[in-house]
Amino acid sequence: MPNQDRSGLSRRAWLAAAAGTAATGLAMTRLDALKATGPQEEAVQPQDPTRVPGRFVSEVGRRAPGEQPRRLLRTLALSSSSRTPLQELQGTITPSDLHFERHHAGVPEIAQEEHELLVHGMVERPTVFRMADLRRYPQVSRICFIECSGNGGGAYSRGRMPVSITPQQLDGLLSTSEWTGVMLSTILREVGVRPGASWILAEGRDAAVMARSVPLDKAMGDAMLAYGQNGEAIRPEQGYPVRLLLPGWEGNAMVKWLRRIEVTDRPTMTRDETSRYTDPLKDGTARQFSFVMDAKSIITFPSYPYVLPERGWWEIEGLAWTGRGRITRVEVSVDGGRTWADAVLQPPVLSKSTVRFRHLWNWHGRETIILSRATDETGYVQPTVHQLWDARGERTAYHHNHQRAWKVAADGVVTFGLGDLV
Amino acid sequence: MPNQDRSGLSRRAWLAAAAGTAATGLAMTRLDALKATGPQEEAVQPQDPTRVPGRFVSEVGRRAPGEQPRRLLRTLALSSSSRTPLQELQGTITPSDLHFERHHAGVPEIAQEEHELLVHGMVERPTVFRMADLRRYPQVSRICFIECSGNGGGAYSRGRMPVSITPQQLDGLLSTSEWTGVMLSTILREVGVRPGASWILAEGRDAAVMARSVPLDKAMGDAMLAYGQNGEAIRPEQGYPVRLLLPGWEGNAMVKWLRRIEVTDRPTMTRDETSRYTDPLKDGTARQFSFVMDAKSIITFPSYPYVLPERGWWEIEGLAWTGRGRITRVEVSVDGGRTWADAVLQPPVLSKSTVRFRHLWNWHGRETIILSRATDETGYVQPTVHQLWDARGERTAYHHNHQRAWKVAADGVVTFGLGDLV
Repeated sequence: MPNQDRSGLSRRAWLAAAAGTAATGLAMTRLDALKATGPQEEAVQPQDPTRVPGRFVSEVGRRAPGEQPRRLLRTLALSSSSRTPLQELQGTITPSDLHFERHHAGVPEIAQEEHELLVHGMVERPTVFRMADLRRYPQVSRICFIECSGNGGGAYSRGRMPVSITPQQLDGLLSTSEWTGVMLSTILREVGVRPGASWILAEGRDAAVMARSVPLDKAMGDAMLAYGQNGEAIRPEQGYPVRLLLPGWEGNAMVKWLRRIEVTDRPTMTRDETSRYTDPLKDGTARQFSFVMDAKSIITFPSYPYVLPERGWWEIEGLAWTGRGRITRVEVSVDGGRTWADAVLQPPVLSKSTVRFRHLWNWHGRETIILSRATDETGYVQPTVHQLWDARGERTAYHHNHQRAWKVAADGVVTFGLGDLV
Repeated sequence: MPNQDRSGLSRRAWLAAAAGTAATGLAMTRLDALKATGPQEEAVQPQDPTRVPGRFVSEVGRRAPGEQPRRLLRTLALSSSSRTPLQELQGTITPSDLHFERHHAGVPEIAQEEHELLVHGMVERPTVFRMADLRRYPQVSRICFIECSGNGGGAYSRGRMPVSITPQQLDGLLSTSEWTGVMLSTILREVGVRPGASWILAEGRDAAVMARSVPLDKAMGDAMLAYGQNGEAIRPEQGYPVRLLLPGWEGNAMVKWLRRIEVTDRPTMTRDETSRYTDPLKDGTARQFSFVMDAKSIITFPSYPYVLPERGWWEIEGLAWTGRGRITRVEVSVDGGRTWADAVLQPPVLSKSTVRFRHLWNWHGRETIILSRATDETGYVQPTVHQLWDARGERTAYHHNHQRAWKVAADGVVTFGLGDLV
């Protein structure tokens, strides 16, 4: 993104600021700001690396000592989650060992040679598939996001808006991977779906035995049985040896450790679909089977706990995604939502995957609130929290895709800013 | 890829074969075949995972016990490499800890806070950049491959064609990642390149102090300073904290642990460019500065050491890539090169990145040789080894992008098959 595309950008001033940082070493930089509240840095390497033979080749690589991103754990008895450190990441791919977790009875240990997937119900030929069988069918790959339907719940309560919350804590139940597997439609065509079928039930093999009903349209659409993640076998935390993948839909419907698919003519109304995963609305009714993840975006820098050391040019960046296809636009406001400008989207913009957006901002050094707002290919615009409250009431527990805001104080300290706007 | 697109495909027969495998447990499957020569499987999990609480959430995930892909090490004193296990991977992304290594004096340990990049020479404003400075400039991300120019050398000698060689051993100096960083052109515009400049010298900070000359056109084109790999900080083995990235060009020119860029008006003719990385030709001259990686493809399944347990439908798959932009076509031959058919390319097909190709094949159960042949957007077609011998002689040490071949024997044993075709 060449600088000359930005009207008014003073390159010399910008470089001078950067050089000033380099020269004085006094100003806290973006990286310093992060580390101030993060793990302590290792002592500076005293040896000249050009005079010391380096580390030998290795069978499995490892991160630099000073780079140790971590998931954030949250538990309630056995029902637990771990969140991706969004504010520490760049690009779109989530490192596989940092992909978020969400399960109700821990991660089962399953050996792929003995795992079986039963496909039965309203089918011509009920069949048990082993992993070797699934892998023999035509393979497909797709980069897409998975998001938990409960993501973002920490910033929905009018009276309890957080201030010191990281993107990880707020929205860390979101990750992106390149998934490989077989189209579920291929398998369903093999077993032969009987006329009149309209749903499937997907069931997992963990101690929670998660079971979810999924409309047959989706199952015959872009649904996948995924056994590969970022080039290798799917991770146990993400469902090894095989999970259901429903691009753009709620994470919980993408049953992990998949052991059974039953083709039915109605939703099964399992425990997981009635006691959980239904959205209570204002009028007392509940929104059920709200499968699609609505368009959403979040600025990951600057965010809490970063500190901007000085005014001047900073690149705002974040992630945007939608379960309805492609993000077509992300707008950024640097004045609390009064005015908006288009951010740059990093190509390729893929359907039902995260896109990285970036926006050059000349910070005047005074307190302000910055926001982002995504639009997807259906024309859907990421709503404000007020709009969501109006539409769904203030008690809904899922699909909190409203606009997020960060307050940048005059001293450069960044905190979550939605509380100031409601 | 719905089965009905394949004329003559008997779905019932195919499924019956798969079901037969499941029922008898006697036939070796693709996975079994791989494991037969790989690490021993853990004992089958005896406990029913639905009756035992699973593993707790974790800060950093880990692979399933039965999935332990490894790089393959090769050393010559300190000059060493480690190769990506291509035959075990799927999709296109290379897990970061399995990205190939190639260096001449080990992996240096560098703390990013004290690392500096000097940009000087024919510039208006010589500048020292720290990592915090580089990160402040507009960021970009790009998925692309890196390939060592010496990759594939093991299958070029007429009299010494290998037989029992894996894709990892043959072509494992190839990996693909999502890279994040700043355009080198942004940095060069900041320092102001002086008229008359036409090259840059890039120098690394490891004990080998690798130095390479790169034409200014490339430096001002799509060259990047990359500090991010698959969503997080670039790995030490790949150049932490920052490397030069030249999409589509020879890996060695993409200097790792980058510490200096000198803008010049001629190539510097460093030790690394004269004693190494020049291609001797038939007529005694040498090809120098052969930067671009030519279009290439390799079938990764079936390959050595896989064993096909039975005749019938198998999906041939592999990787194709080119330094000249996009792959437009991959053809597969299942009869030793007599006839060819188009394989399916997995979208999105990205410029200067790897693309996964797949081709459904009904194996008749008799011995045969399978090959793949890539074509890129310039019209360049991956040559046969005969064509390369004619063009460059048989002693050239780099850019071995000729067509690869695998022999499938009647008993399903797969070996490298080029020796049979030359």
